[in-house]
Amino acid sequence: MIVKSFYISFIIALIFSQPAYGQLRKGFPAPSSIPNSEYPYINSDGKVTFRIKAPSAKTVQVMGRDRNIPFGEKPTDLIRGEDGVWTVTIPIKPGFHYYQLIIDGTPVNDSASKAYFGWGQYTSGLEIPNPKVDFDRVKKVPHGEVRERFYHSQVTGELRRVFVYTPPGYNADIQRRYPVLYLQHGAGENERAWTKQGKANFILDNLIYSRQAVPMIVVMDNGYARKPGVELPPDSWGNEAFGEVVIKDLIPLIDSQYRTIANRNYRAIAGLSMGGGQALEVGLNNLDKFSWVGGFSSLLKNVDVDKSYDRVFTNPVLANLKLNLLWLGCGIEDDFYSTNNQASKALTEAGINHLWIQTEGGHEWLVWRRYLRDFAQLLFR
Amino acid sequence: MIVKSFYISFIIALIFSQPAYGQLRKGFPAPSSIPNSEYPYINSDGKVTFRIKAPSAKTVQVMGRDRNIPFGEKPTDLIRGEDGVWTVTIPIKPGFHYYQLIIDGTPVNDSASKAYFGWGQYTSGLEIPNPKVDFDRVKKVPHGEVRERFYHSQVTGELRRVFVYTPPGYNADIQRRYPVLYLQHGAGENERAWTKQGKANFILDNLIYSRQAVPMIVVMDNGYARKPGVELPPDSWGNEAFGEVVIKDLIPLIDSQYRTIANRNYRAIAGLSMGGGQALEVGLNNLDKFSWVGGFSSLLKNVDVDKSYDRVFTNPVLANLKLNLLWLGCGIEDDFYSTNNQASKALTEAGINHLWIQTEGGHEWLVWRRYLRDFAQLLFR
Repeated sequence: MIVKSFYISFIIALIFSQPAYGQLRKGFPAPSSIPNSEYPYINSDGKVTFRIKAPSAKTVQVMGRDRNIPFGEKPTDLIRGEDGVWTVTIPIKPGFHYYQLIIDGTPVNDSASKAYFGWGQYTSGLEIPNPKVDFDRVKKVPHGEVRERFYHSQVTGELRRVFVYTPPGYNADIQRRYPVLYLQHGAGENERAWTKQGKANFILDNLIYSRQAVPMIVVMDNGYARKPGVELPPDSWGNEAFGEVVIKDLIPLIDSQYRTIANRNYRAIAGLSMGGGQALEVGLNNLDKFSWVGGFSSLLKNVDVDKSYDRVFTNPVLANLKLNLLWLGCGIEDDFYSTNNQASKALTEAGINHLWIQTEGGHEWLVWRRYLRDFAQLLFR
Repeated sequence: MIVKSFYISFIIALIFSQPAYGQLRKGFPAPSSIPNSEYPYINSDGKVTFRIKAPSAKTVQVMGRDRNIPFGEKPTDLIRGEDGVWTVTIPIKPGFHYYQLIIDGTPVNDSASKAYFGWGQYTSGLEIPNPKVDFDRVKKVPHGEVRERFYHSQVTGELRRVFVYTPPGYNADIQRRYPVLYLQHGAGENERAWTKQGKANFILDNLIYSRQAVPMIVVMDNGYARKPGVELPPDSWGNEAFGEVVIKDLIPLIDSQYRTIANRNYRAIAGLSMGGGQALEVGLNNLDKFSWVGGFSSLLKNVDVDKSYDRVFTNPVLANLKLNLLWLGCGIEDDFYSTNNQASKALTEAGINHLWIQTEGGHEWLVWRRYLRDFAQLLFR
């Protein structure tokens, strides 16, 4: 079962290239549009039409809210029709993108779209399916459950919420026990993001059905956590107590409530962006609990092998023995690329086995869905 | 275990009366405000302050979107401060209310609040706790899970989503089997409403902890369902196939995936508004499957005991034998009061045992939370 992973550096090029929408392909409302809404509409040429009725407005614009500026650098003006309905059609690349409308200068959500928790608030989301891939679609395969669970944290003194994916078959075979992946969201999002924005449950359903991944439990907690009465430093993200929550609250909760294999060889942790940095911190600082660790486009400080991660890398032989997998991935268009590349270089120099996956793409959900797909296939084998 | 219920008509007065907010009570951000947002703010006198930064706007208003007009008949103007921040403080009664801001004439969501699926789209919600009751609060008691499950419907040919509440202890005691309540939302809302707007999981957690209700599974499906290729009549709500979904898809799914007691004596169905009408239809038309039936502020046509509900009431002795409980409730301020009152009168004249609960309140979530609390206590005893 133990996988020894070695340093591999390669670029998966072309994977995230723009799709060639077939001319015969029909348009359709975006999957992120609310039920019975025709808009936002994805046209047969892949362009997206936005629409809002605002007869009294003087100006209406649409703007993206992602780092990778899928909507362009500046807001785009909608054009007013005689009926007070404003529309515009613009090219936007496939993926999941946050956006808002700007009505007379004030950013607001588009009530024709579903709202997702991102950017620290509920924000309109736009899902443009990539016609070249379907690993993140809902297919006619057995589906697992996504369970919402509330618990009282001993660490923070507050009520917290965690989502737990249990794989297809979990309810039927009541003797079987499963490995567990702890999977963290990024800054400004929350514990709901991996299943809503990220489609993690459908990705796992599909992988498990095709036997590309072993059936596993996936635990998605909130990455923000602070202790009561502790004054936060000025540059705090409010997530300083997260590691303690994982160790003292979460793992005991999950191992008592679910049929887990409660053993470091069957416990993984990964995350994206802020959550990637947290996954590396929590995983590498607790190798008695975790042996599979993944960072997706991680928010990292420069890695100093003599100091970082509780000095685990100062004994590379032991670290390599303890780590079944250390997986780092980042898009080459991502602002975080250079720190991740530095981390991989430092690990290589220290003789730490790891995978370093450089891909096309920026800081975006299409990349993270693919990383989950690729990472999950390596786990627990 | 069989409860024989008899005709009781009484008014629970004063229950929904305005709370006397203590002068010493501090203000606090509404529980429906997004994390780290101070607004909407509930002041110590119970009034609510709304706030939005919109420097370029000419007018900003706030309006309620509920039948019971908790925000008053007309939108309320916010006042512009010199910094371009608009605010207003107004009295609003406790409960859960949908609302929107109107910026220069265009209704938009308030990005300081959580968005809920209501009125057919994601709409801002405002939760004002009733200081006189705490049955719907999160308490330090064991919590059940709310499980999101996707399934492919044989009836509609489409993917559907259902939420399943499993009670505390469900995971620990893997031999125990449980009764099931099917619980339906109202028009314009969806299968998420009973746990988000309605706090059903916390209400059940509290009732089960205090032994006021027996541990039960609660199944919350989407009330809209249509068959493929069937032309809808002009006045269609798009929910015509719901009953068939319950019988052919849902009950078999739930009984195969969860440790239910798969028996009419341990199966209940209830709902609110549109879902109340559906619960009565599905329950009374399928008394081989259900023996506990509840309608909360139900959307009903006039009941004709000789024709309605598959003529089940034409044999009152048999109907009374089959029904462990028939529960009807409606607020006296509700537009639906008269049809519900007519239904109770018709049942009484036909000699059908039932509970008819008339309460203060209108067509609103505070009423439905209380009905769930009261109804759930009578179930499966």
